[in-house]
Amino acid sequence: MRVDVLTLFPEMFDGVFNASILGKAREKGIISLQAVNFRQYAGNKHGQVDDTPYGGGGGMVLKPDPIFTAVETLLDEAEHPTILGNTDEVVQGEEAGLSAGLKAPRIILMCPQGETFTQKKAEELAKEDHLIFICGHYEGYDERIREYLVTDELSIGDYVLTGGELPAMVAIDSMARLLPGVLGNETSAVTDSFSTGLLEYPHYTRPAEFRGWKVPEVLLSGHHVNIDVWRRQEALRRTMERRPDLLEQAELTSKERVWIEEQRKMD
Amino acid sequence: MRVDVLTLFPEMFDGVFNASILGKAREKGIISLQAVNFRQYAGNKHGQVDDTPYGGGGGMVLKPDPIFTAVETLLDEAEHPTILGNTDEVVQGEEAGLSAGLKAPRIILMCPQGETFTQKKAEELAKEDHLIFICGHYEGYDERIREYLVTDELSIGDYVLTGGELPAMVAIDSMARLLPGVLGNETSAVTDSFSTGLLEYPHYTRPAEFRGWKVPEVLLSGHHVNIDVWRRQEALRRTMERRPDLLEQAELTSKERVWIEEQRKMD
Repeated sequence: MRVDVLTLFPEMFDGVFNASILGKAREKGIISLQAVNFRQYAGNKHGQVDDTPYGGGGGMVLKPDPIFTAVETLLDEAEHPTILGNTDEVVQGEEAGLSAGLKAPRIILMCPQGETFTQKKAEELAKEDHLIFICGHYEGYDERIREYLVTDELSIGDYVLTGGELPAMVAIDSMARLLPGVLGNETSAVTDSFSTGLLEYPHYTRPAEFRGWKVPEVLLSGHHVNIDVWRRQEALRRTMERRPDLLEQAELTSKERVWIEEQRKMD
Repeated sequence: MRVDVLTLFPEMFDGVFNASILGKAREKGIISLQAVNFRQYAGNKHGQVDDTPYGGGGGMVLKPDPIFTAVETLLDEAEHPTILGNTDEVVQGEEAGLSAGLKAPRIILMCPQGETFTQKKAEELAKEDHLIFICGHYEGYDERIREYLVTDELSIGDYVLTGGELPAMVAIDSMARLLPGVLGNETSAVTDSFSTGLLEYPHYTRPAEFRGWKVPEVLLSGHHVNIDVWRRQEALRRTMERRPDLLEQAELTSKERVWIEEQRKMD
């Protein structure tokens, strides 16, 4: 998979793209990640990429031209060499992608007005061949970028950030760890919250007693049926207490639904 | 304000802590940010910070000891020198903070089971003197960390990430930009989504015509009342189309509520 990020702050990505899971996925050749400064496509000698808004008001607005040009340059460059493999034919851009059976790239604008990013969206993005993220910074986007260029607008949550860089990192991290071969067994085996529809049950490790606080007896019992029952109940209890909204869509047995009703009555 | 991040991947923070708004806030002395590797508090020669879970199952669990020790060391070190200022007296830890009228630090665990982070939570954190973020990576946390050490558990959204590092950066960025003096006028004047309760209206800048796509007439009219009306309506329309859930809590005039009802009937 190829991921390009258009940003005015490519250096923000260095630490994250090189560390941990993303660093390993790059080393293994599963994903190619690059942060591109779209100021180089400003098309004027001062490198100006933003301008004041029509109609007045504060703040600056990102001009359409540099971002259109940057995306189009990436599309032209996208020869997908690792996927096209040993072909001698050098085919450019969209034609190359289509001839290799590749899907058209998704062009994703990170912005507070976007669709809320969820685990389901991460799974959807993990099936693509090429993603292009556009990150604004301080500024708003000229509306024509939304209307005529991007395929998706995504928001990672209801809070205001300085730019789209952190949201792009979040989307890339959650998507990349779903790519085949990225996670080893030692990590993928963790029962992830959200992928089961419930919050995780409590975990404990050594020591069995820490400053007087003990691990629950059942986990030390070696009785696996009891442990499974306890864990499932704790996951249900935690979800009920903290995120009752998740229970609606979780896969529950009818017995579990009854148990939840009982707990609710007891409160 | 002092912000400490406990992580196994401090190098992930370099790019983000030094760039843009956070970099400037540090230069101005408004915020002190440090990422601390808690492996140094492992208390064993192999630097082991995790172990297998009691009760079996895959994945690793972060041991309580290194994280308790790391937090306690930070609390002891927290002399808040920039706030205590010119005092000759060196007072340690909590006592120092209390004598300077400081609040006790918030100890925040980034995890999918946490309370969902919102703009309101960012505003709340921006009022604190000292924040300590705990970031797990791959592993789960020993439950005793949740129960007996942390003051807050936060999640930035319903998706699975490789670790708490990106969520901590998100929380820090959205909180830090609210600190007095961090944002200049050129940026703070942008009408932020969520802070008004509505999504932002569309922005346009030069050129007035780009590839045949024109800026709406009203924005070029110079008629400020009409521009304000258009912008407010577009903000309402966009929120209604994309995030109707936000309308419930937005401050709307009764006329606007009527207009929304009319739009809904027309669909």
